Amino acid sequence: MRVASEKPDVVIVGSIAFDTVETPREKRENLIGGSATYASFAAALFSSVGIVGIVGEDFPQDIISLLQTRGVDTRGLVVRPGKTFFWHGKYEADMETRTSLRTELNVFSDFDPRLPPEYADCPYVFLANIEPRLQLCVLEQVREPRFVMADTMDLWIRTAAHELDSVIRRVDLLTVNESEIRLLSGETTLVRAARRLLARGLKHVLVKKGESGAVLFSGERTLFIPAYPLEEVRDPTGAGDAFAGAFIGALAERGCTNLEDLFAAALSGSSVASFAVESFGADGLARLTKAQAISRREQLLSMIHPFPVKD
Amino acid sequence: MRVASEKPDVVIVGSIAFDTVETPREKRENLIGGSATYASFAAALFSSVGIVGIVGEDFPQDIISLLQTRGVDTRGLVVRPGKTFFWHGKYEADMETRTSLRTELNVFSDFDPRLPPEYADCPYVFLANIEPRLQLCVLEQVREPRFVMADTMDLWIRTAAHELDSVIRRVDLLTVNESEIRLLSGETTLVRAARRLLARGLKHVLVKKGESGAVLFSGERTLFIPAYPLEEVRDPTGAGDAFAGAFIGALAERGCTNLEDLFAAALSGSSVASFAVESFGADGLARLTKAQAISRREQLLSMIHPFPVKD
Repeated sequence: MRVASEKPDVVIVGSIAFDTVETPREKRENLIGGSATYASFAAALFSSVGIVGIVGEDFPQDIISLLQTRGVDTRGLVVRPGKTFFWHGKYEADMETRTSLRTELNVFSDFDPRLPPEYADCPYVFLANIEPRLQLCVLEQVREPRFVMADTMDLWIRTAAHELDSVIRRVDLLTVNESEIRLLSGETTLVRAARRLLARGLKHVLVKKGESGAVLFSGERTLFIPAYPLEEVRDPTGAGDAFAGAFIGALAERGCTNLEDLFAAALSGSSVASFAVESFGADGLARLTKAQAISRREQLLSMIHPFPVKD
Repeated sequence: MRVASEKPDVVIVGSIAFDTVETPREKRENLIGGSATYASFAAALFSSVGIVGIVGEDFPQDIISLLQTRGVDTRGLVVRPGKTFFWHGKYEADMETRTSLRTELNVFSDFDPRLPPEYADCPYVFLANIEPRLQLCVLEQVREPRFVMADTMDLWIRTAAHELDSVIRRVDLLTVNESEIRLLSGETTLVRAARRLLARGLKHVLVKKGESGAVLFSGERTLFIPAYPLEEVRDPTGAGDAFAGAFIGALAERGCTNLEDLFAAALSGSSVASFAVESFGADGLARLTKAQAISRREQLLSMIHPFPVKD
């Protein structure tokens, strides 16, 4: 068990939830979910993490203990009277298309992210998918972070474009999926869409493509990150959050943000995301060891480096 | 101008056609198309090629001359009284989903592929998408080729499963897209689908994923080949054939079929395929230079090798 340090390397702000997930084969109720939960378990494999979020009194104490056991500082976790954010979704046969059957914000509707004062100097920050207004509120509370990444979704692109644009102008990396980047940029091809976002001041855009991997647009460079080919995908929920969490955790561990660091971190992200979709619920990641994550990262590397290695 | 050698390095057997292609933005009529045409122009960038196919008397002599100019031996090209194979297709807004509006086999309905006797010892063979019965007929005419690859389509998977299975048992590599491999294997995930095909005796399965690249399953190894990110896709027709043609041409140029040769050849395939979709018609590839193809292959390599190169 790692002890939370005074100042974690990575701060993660986002949702913490109960999820009910239906796939063509299974239905699982009241899983531990939420973007911050997936991302924190993933990031904690590589670095010390502080989670900032809100839960209701119904949230299990043993999950909070599990986060702590995995090296996640929970001083930024607020417990409020009421119920935890609840989401019920259903996946189609392709295991990508999904429908939200029910969303109950509950205590999350009052989320006002307050970082513990010790977090103000945290060098790595992940603003998971929450209202851009709240993401901006977090950015006001950190001093000269080394690397900030943000996630978003179609809802905010449609309803909070102005605030989202302010977020984009202030972070280093934005992570989006293909339909989101098209919606956000008005362009159909990824290259043009990414170029348009980079022109708004972003340094990097990470486009998540599910089982087809991810593409990182970074200035004039484009990097391709493979997805680990799985025999079975059980629950795609949280894959993007696990990717992002492992990415920023691995980046913090490297302590550098050069192109090769970003690429190596993205391979870690892809590795951990592949484990995330092999089981239901964010707490599945708590069973993952760093050695397993690294081993699969090495396998991913071997998928794009079949050449004899020169030393 | 290269002079066709006695025995080309690569034999390509497939369709030669006129295509009318509609995209959301454009409609172009009577383009030069066909799997063998795309593949031959692509392969000829790297090796000497012999094309085996059939056209009607309406097929332009200047395209035959263009093939020859590009180093394609046309002794296996039969000209018959009647009209050339005609296809009319329409692409949806995603530029992937397509509908065949009209298919006229014309002289292609009598296609009985006969290899010039000099081709019997050709080391590299690509059986483009034609009836499996005809692919088997070609296999009867070659002696101990070093590497044979075959393409197929949903129609043959549904209607000629037995003959297709015989093809699969006799070739080294099968190239398919995602829906085809699912249909062919009855499995939903690519890993399981590929494993099932490899168990039938194939050495390699190449899964084409359009703008998401390609995955090569080779024994226990899996390789990921990125697609070149394009600003604009004008006509996706022939992308897979151009990929396959450049792949086998580059493989023949290397003269080896180790894993790193296959990977390098696949990068060449991805490079040339990206040029193919940037213009309408197979003859667009005749304007492509080998230097351009190699330059883009290097760019593809840099997308997956951002690390400092050790020498």
